Amino acid sequence: MNVAIISIGDELMNGFTVDTNSSWISRKILKYDLLDVVSKVTVKDNINDIKDNLDYLIKNNIDYIFITGGIGPTHDDITKKALADYFNTSLVINSSYYLRLKEYFKNKNIKTTSSLKSQAQILENSIPIPNRYGTALGMKIEYNKSIIFVLPGVPREVKGMVEEEICPLYLSPSLKEVEKYITLLTTGVYESKLFEILENIINENSDNFKVSFLPQYTGVKIRLSRMKKKKDLNIFKDIIMNKIGKYVYGFDDDKIEEIVAKKIVKNGLTLAVAESCTGGYISKKLTDIPGSSSYFKGSIVAYDNSIKEQFLEISDQLLINSGAVSSEVAIDMAENIRNKFKVDIGLSTTGISGPSGGSEDKPIGLIFIAISTKNKKIVKKFNLIPRRREHRDIATHTALNMLRLVIK
Amino acid sequence: MNVAIISIGDELMNGFTVDTNSSWISRKILKYDLLDVVSKVTVKDNINDIKDNLDYLIKNNIDYIFITGGIGPTHDDITKKALADYFNTSLVINSSYYLRLKEYFKNKNIKTTSSLKSQAQILENSIPIPNRYGTALGMKIEYNKSIIFVLPGVPREVKGMVEEEICPLYLSPSLKEVEKYITLLTTGVYESKLFEILENIINENSDNFKVSFLPQYTGVKIRLSRMKKKKDLNIFKDIIMNKIGKYVYGFDDDKIEEIVAKKIVKNGLTLAVAESCTGGYISKKLTDIPGSSSYFKGSIVAYDNSIKEQFLEISDQLLINSGAVSSEVAIDMAENIRNKFKVDIGLSTTGISGPSGGSEDKPIGLIFIAISTKNKKIVKKFNLIPRRREHRDIATHTALNMLRLVIK
Repeated sequence: MNVAIISIGDELMNGFTVDTNSSWISRKILKYDLLDVVSKVTVKDNINDIKDNLDYLIKNNIDYIFITGGIGPTHDDITKKALADYFNTSLVINSSYYLRLKEYFKNKNIKTTSSLKSQAQILENSIPIPNRYGTALGMKIEYNKSIIFVLPGVPREVKGMVEEEICPLYLSPSLKEVEKYITLLTTGVYESKLFEILENIINENSDNFKVSFLPQYTGVKIRLSRMKKKKDLNIFKDIIMNKIGKYVYGFDDDKIEEIVAKKIVKNGLTLAVAESCTGGYISKKLTDIPGSSSYFKGSIVAYDNSIKEQFLEISDQLLINSGAVSSEVAIDMAENIRNKFKVDIGLSTTGISGPSGGSEDKPIGLIFIAISTKNKKIVKKFNLIPRRREHRDIATHTALNMLRLVIK
Repeated sequence: MNVAIISIGDELMNGFTVDTNSSWISRKILKYDLLDVVSKVTVKDNINDIKDNLDYLIKNNIDYIFITGGIGPTHDDITKKALADYFNTSLVINSSYYLRLKEYFKNKNIKTTSSLKSQAQILENSIPIPNRYGTALGMKIEYNKSIIFVLPGVPREVKGMVEEEICPLYLSPSLKEVEKYITLLTTGVYESKLFEILENIINENSDNFKVSFLPQYTGVKIRLSRMKKKKDLNIFKDIIMNKIGKYVYGFDDDKIEEIVAKKIVKNGLTLAVAESCTGGYISKKLTDIPGSSSYFKGSIVAYDNSIKEQFLEISDQLLINSGAVSSEVAIDMAENIRNKFKVDIGLSTTGISGPSGGSEDKPIGLIFIAISTKNKKIVKKFNLIPRRREHRDIATHTALNMLRLVIK
């Protein structure tokens, strides 16, 4: 069964808004056994363009067509008008919804205008799709061999309506969720090394499974995909994990800070960070995770050397002799933050993200990351990409990975 | 003149990769007077799909067609094959480029395979487009009334090739860069308020200029667009700024942390931060900016109350009486970080991002942000969106905006 996605909006066409809805819908839809996304187009807020694109898909008997955007209350929003035109039907007010909407705004003391009515307007040939996260109603329309879903453009609303309404209620009951893709997240290992280890397995299984290597700054993602129905991707995953498991920190949408958080909680540990070049980035990532207050006590961002001296008690002699960017300073930072903040694990970074501050001895990109626990001191030196943004991203990821590896 | 963009790749179609290239190209291209982006499609790594979509655009006499993706070295990359098929031409090795590529890898001591050759392969009917940021050559092809640019899928490479090669060398010299869009970035003011102030101006100018309100969590963007050629958008911008200038912190792609950084540098000030609920996020944003080490000394992330007591010298009595989330604690945090870190400005946050930790008195979403300077103490209370991620985003943005306002 084929799926197509039409994303409507001048903001998408002119590039001011990146279309994340169509990616999200694809990933969600591809979890179903027999569904395949075959077409994705962006269309302006233009009645003829909308009609032409929809017509093409309907004539090609696409089973499910998702339309997002252009059903809001402003005059640019002309998706409903285009559809009423195309289906030669009229727009009607869903009066029970309209009354509920009016009541809601009244209770919130928000003045409403005539545009509110348009939010409750649906095509006469459609079934309304409730929207728990916004005001515009969605629609389901059946026409020829296609089922068409009309949704707003706001990502949060699209997600809610697809997850809570369309998937459970309106997709064919014959569709089953299966694993068609599994992504292994690795870090600290080259693509070529991974390929060398896996080459034989990949070749032996190439009729049934596909293995794609997706190198990123922070590590290589390995995407396993099922080529044939009825083949179990999880069995293939186990074969792969058996070979490269030690490089894999997570799967699919896992984030390294979540993985670290789970391990810390499981072991009942506490943590503090002394950051120089990462400037608060590691602390930010750690506190992104709900519940982090139970194990993360805090940090000192010692961006200036005077802060390293006064608040992390790095000796000025060491700063002069070894330099702020050195393994000795990194270790002392990790040790001292652990002792001062009275935690189980101290983590530290000191490096040069650029664009200035590099020298021949200590070039931009250099970084030392250290971890101190009661029984262990670890320090590692890396020469990362010498561009500020990437350097900070990779440094933070690498520090979190060192944390992951140090915790049982 | 019409522009179309074809984004090629299974990863795009199945939603694992979000297509940022087409948005970036749109924005870049729309800076030229007479260019208009009229079509954007995503196409799988499939020869027939690629040929069909290209054929449709060429038959519609699209002036410039950008194709991204699928020219890499792996077996999935079939864009070049599809194009050779379509144009009924063959692929040839650009031998001088191939030798350079081989030399480059040899110097870097990287083993190369036969796939390297494919990176130097171009269509016989094409002109090569150099790629300073990667290995795959791009191509320019003229066919019927269309000029077709073939580019890799890696965003950094696309940007480089469009900015450094295509725009200066291959677009019609009759095209001039003009301001077709200006975006005003506001924060701390409601959309309805802005609309009220601007309503008359918008109506009076609606034939020539369009004003779109784009509310985001961190503020309302106002996009001004020129409806008619020869109308000067900058004059209209000045009229608008005259009315709402005090809410505008920047334009287009400006970031609030950059604006703050410029003001701090200009005034020769220094800064330190005491973060509780924002957990390092403000420090991270500040240090994202190159050169921040000249004014940002560092932070204490006092996530746990014990850190607030010991390292920010917040009295335990105050913590008990007023609670950690209080205006008194926020002020003391800002004052004490300023004094301890010996800087001109101390900034602090203390709040409840959730999902837990809220009470009837102090619900999730509550936050106090304080600023301390030699002559001033400011503290503000906000009830922000009670969802962790949004709360942290808005809190950080709001704190940076308070900084902006406090500096002359």
